[in-house]
Amino acid sequence: MKILNVKPEDIEKRSMELIEEGLNGRRWPEPEFSIIKRCIHTSADFDYADNLTFSEDAARIGIEAIRSGAHIITDTKMALSGINKRTLSAYGGEVHCFISDESVAEEAKARGCTRAKVSMERGAALEGKNIFAIGNAPTALIRVNELIKEGKLEPALIIGVPVGFVNVIESKELIMDSGVPYIVAKGRKGGSNIAAAICNAMMYYKGEI
Amino acid sequence: MKILNVKPEDIEKRSMELIEEGLNGRRWPEPEFSIIKRCIHTSADFDYADNLTFSEDAARIGIEAIRSGAHIITDTKMALSGINKRTLSAYGGEVHCFISDESVAEEAKARGCTRAKVSMERGAALEGKNIFAIGNAPTALIRVNELIKEGKLEPALIIGVPVGFVNVIESKELIMDSGVPYIVAKGRKGGSNIAAAICNAMMYYKGEI
Repeated sequence: MKILNVKPEDIEKRSMELIEEGLNGRRWPEPEFSIIKRCIHTSADFDYADNLTFSEDAARIGIEAIRSGAHIITDTKMALSGINKRTLSAYGGEVHCFISDESVAEEAKARGCTRAKVSMERGAALEGKNIFAIGNAPTALIRVNELIKEGKLEPALIIGVPVGFVNVIESKELIMDSGVPYIVAKGRKGGSNIAAAICNAMMYYKGEI
Repeated sequence: MKILNVKPEDIEKRSMELIEEGLNGRRWPEPEFSIIKRCIHTSADFDYADNLTFSEDAARIGIEAIRSGAHIITDTKMALSGINKRTLSAYGGEVHCFISDESVAEEAKARGCTRAKVSMERGAALEGKNIFAIGNAPTALIRVNELIKEGKLEPALIIGVPVGFVNVIESKELIMDSGVPYIVAKGRKGGSNIAAAICNAMMYYKGEI
């Protein structure tokens, strides 16, 4: 067992090379490839090479939105922590997470629904075409889909990567039928770390789009 | 495709049942089983049933430490976000993450090492026997091991679940040789979400130990 001597600034580069090796020569067009690699980087789970699904041009649309100052609305404090807020703010955007707001908790209790659902309504009330990055709650994704159908929300992009066992697969299928640009992790996998990784990969992408 | 009507308060219970089904009757003794199930719950990745490795009595030791007011030191803001701080504080503990401290960044730059490494030294300076929960940086885990060898740190428990491709497997093997109680996700997998899930599972465990 030998600890490799890799300089801090070279760790990510070396990791990405090892991920490419692990993909055995499989490649995707950019910017999708950068997003796939960053999801594998954050999870060490190569399943993301196969379960990440992009609607036509979704990655380009998301990057363009970020470069135009779109906000990111997420359903968890963990994703809020993981998204690079400094880089996003340089483009003019902010990350919003309403899940822990006192008023959201009160409203959810009164209505007998999840805080995630109410927090998406708060996000939909923000101005502009924004990015919704859902890493935990299928109920958030289901509400986003309803808000679109009700004409109350027109997001730039939906990142639909809730994780889990109850209504997770179904909520992702709803989004893939919504007609809105999406990046979805098909199946049960996903998480706040994956939601943050997708946002960060789009921010870090330096190529022309 | 049918959205199941599950009440918010029942989602977690139903998820745990589905995880038990997914394990095809495989069971572990408690409190290990609760920890394994919560890691699968947070990732939808059944690999954790096989890669989570507990030193003798580690889960019991960790729960006992939490119930005695141990602090948790972690290497990422995401884990800090994900760990249930309210529940921990009811036991008298706090979660600490020094990674974003200005002084940590300056010292790491001056020494040409990672901020994660310096942040572990800050954690080792805290009083008492505490829990180190590493979800991201192998350099943090390597430094924890060195601090133990140097006689500068005696943790209650090490949660060694960094994720990735450079020195991750090696850093986990070091910890499994350290003689200190550990919970480790063998291999490349892990992450801040897994570190937080293990901490929360120990806090939420209500059984006798």
